[in-house]
Amino acid sequence: MESEFLDWVRQQGQQQFAALNAARRIVAVGIGDDAAVLNALGVTSCVVTTDLLCEGVHFRRAQTTAELIGRKALAVNLSDLAAMAARPAAAFVSLLLPRDSAAELARGIVSGMRPLADEFDVAIAGGDTNTWGGELVISVTAIGLAVGRRPPLLRSGAKPNDVLLVTGQLGGSLLGHHLTFVPRVREALLLNERYRLHAAMDISDGLALDLRRLAAASNCGAIVVADQIPVSAAAKELETDDRPALDHALGDGEDFELLLAAPPEVAAELLRQQPLDVPLTAIGRCTAEPGLSLQLADGRQIPLPHLGYTH
Amino acid sequence: MESEFLDWVRQQGQQQFAALNAARRIVAVGIGDDAAVLNALGVTSCVVTTDLLCEGVHFRRAQTTAELIGRKALAVNLSDLAAMAARPAAAFVSLLLPRDSAAELARGIVSGMRPLADEFDVAIAGGDTNTWGGELVISVTAIGLAVGRRPPLLRSGAKPNDVLLVTGQLGGSLLGHHLTFVPRVREALLLNERYRLHAAMDISDGLALDLRRLAAASNCGAIVVADQIPVSAAAKELETDDRPALDHALGDGEDFELLLAAPPEVAAELLRQQPLDVPLTAIGRCTAEPGLSLQLADGRQIPLPHLGYTH
Repeated sequence: MESEFLDWVRQQGQQQFAALNAARRIVAVGIGDDAAVLNALGVTSCVVTTDLLCEGVHFRRAQTTAELIGRKALAVNLSDLAAMAARPAAAFVSLLLPRDSAAELARGIVSGMRPLADEFDVAIAGGDTNTWGGELVISVTAIGLAVGRRPPLLRSGAKPNDVLLVTGQLGGSLLGHHLTFVPRVREALLLNERYRLHAAMDISDGLALDLRRLAAASNCGAIVVADQIPVSAAAKELETDDRPALDHALGDGEDFELLLAAPPEVAAELLRQQPLDVPLTAIGRCTAEPGLSLQLADGRQIPLPHLGYTH
Repeated sequence: MESEFLDWVRQQGQQQFAALNAARRIVAVGIGDDAAVLNALGVTSCVVTTDLLCEGVHFRRAQTTAELIGRKALAVNLSDLAAMAARPAAAFVSLLLPRDSAAELARGIVSGMRPLADEFDVAIAGGDTNTWGGELVISVTAIGLAVGRRPPLLRSGAKPNDVLLVTGQLGGSLLGHHLTFVPRVREALLLNERYRLHAAMDISDGLALDLRRLAAASNCGAIVVADQIPVSAAAKELETDDRPALDHALGDGEDFELLLAAPPEVAAELLRQQPLDVPLTAIGRCTAEPGLSLQLADGRQIPLPHLGYTH
């Protein structure tokens, strides 16, 4: 029901506002990608993204600290800007604080957010603070600028035969990575500046699900090679007889790594040069035929399992 | 405690990020005004504001409809853009929906928001939707553009001897106006284009409190003339022996009218020409001496009462 409902809301949004947005050329990219691109703001595009985090869905106060929650609320937005290869510029932070511990929580959240804002040169340029009888809610809107020679990287640019690549390792984020990850902003900016990529997104709901989204947006299919997926140590730690580490790498949410599509010659250069501090790994390729497959070690191809975190 | 706490959060923000923002010239106006102004986005400024509304603080579901809540969530943000004389461009809407009625609420909220977005040519360019076990929360971020010959209107530009003016009537918003008000966007754009105003803000927490903020930001004092305050019919309806209509006009929140400061000759022209569809009323003037006074009908001046809605 919930996923249908979210689709419905998104459709509503698209139907109701598509005509409006088309006529109004400020919105170069609206609902449906990691962030919105606003044109007509002058010489550079302005990239905007927003994410709301709340108790019980994105974190549990009993299991973490206000500092880490604040850090995460900003980090997930920066990850969305990275997914568009936009340079973070400003963030707007709205807090809804439980009355009984409002001051303490706010202090922790700001402290946790600040080092990340410093590291990525993000101005916390506004926000809204309220207290209430309910649980903690944080809503962050981040604005980035498209920089350099290239326009923002979209999900929809992948072409058949493009090589699919990922940064870092996947799976098992729940063991800690989801609270401490470094958004791939520097990596995305460097890649988009130096290499002619076709598409990018951040892996927030599991590789299998996010690849499905990238393929759908690009109107292509994809084959993923099981053996090539960089499975994290955390995913291996979570491995059970019922759920192999590969399933964690394919299905666990909140990796916040980049999923990229690049033409074969660009991908070859990327893999040879390895220009990032984190590994870049080729995990498969895009296909003209629709549908997503997983190529197993024995060479068989099976449909890519429907794994992934659905809200 | 709560107001101290909010001040603390604001100070934290200002202290922690002031140096950062000064070095980073994108933030022309950051925390402390109705909205943030971002420079360096090209030929026009980009104005960003965010407001979070939640059950029990800004609305009660039992007493209103999802449509009116959705409308209000967008309207309060447009009012902040109006307060800066920025033309609304795009809005980002995050919803946190109670699980038991998520679809119905989302539908209502979108339906209620849409006509206002149409009317003011605002693209709903993104957002985030979640369901949870708690109450309804809506967070909206709106982005506007500074247009025409004038820069955005700030709170801090008022000068001694400026005439203070307000649009419309004040007080008693709770009887309905707070859910149905039309943000003063057109009025602000027209005024800022045609007249040389010094300062503006929207009256969201009551004239007395918001004037205090404008005076503080402008480093001046003010005298308000009791007889000249345009008291709404709703404020008169709420009048009791304990609480005269004037107190409602001075202290009730959510008028969402404009408070303006203009040099005497500009104010005289404004009052003669009455260029808006709503009345413009002179209510007093700014003074070089600090402090806020209320001039009564008998000519006596008393300190402006500490009325107003504090969150």
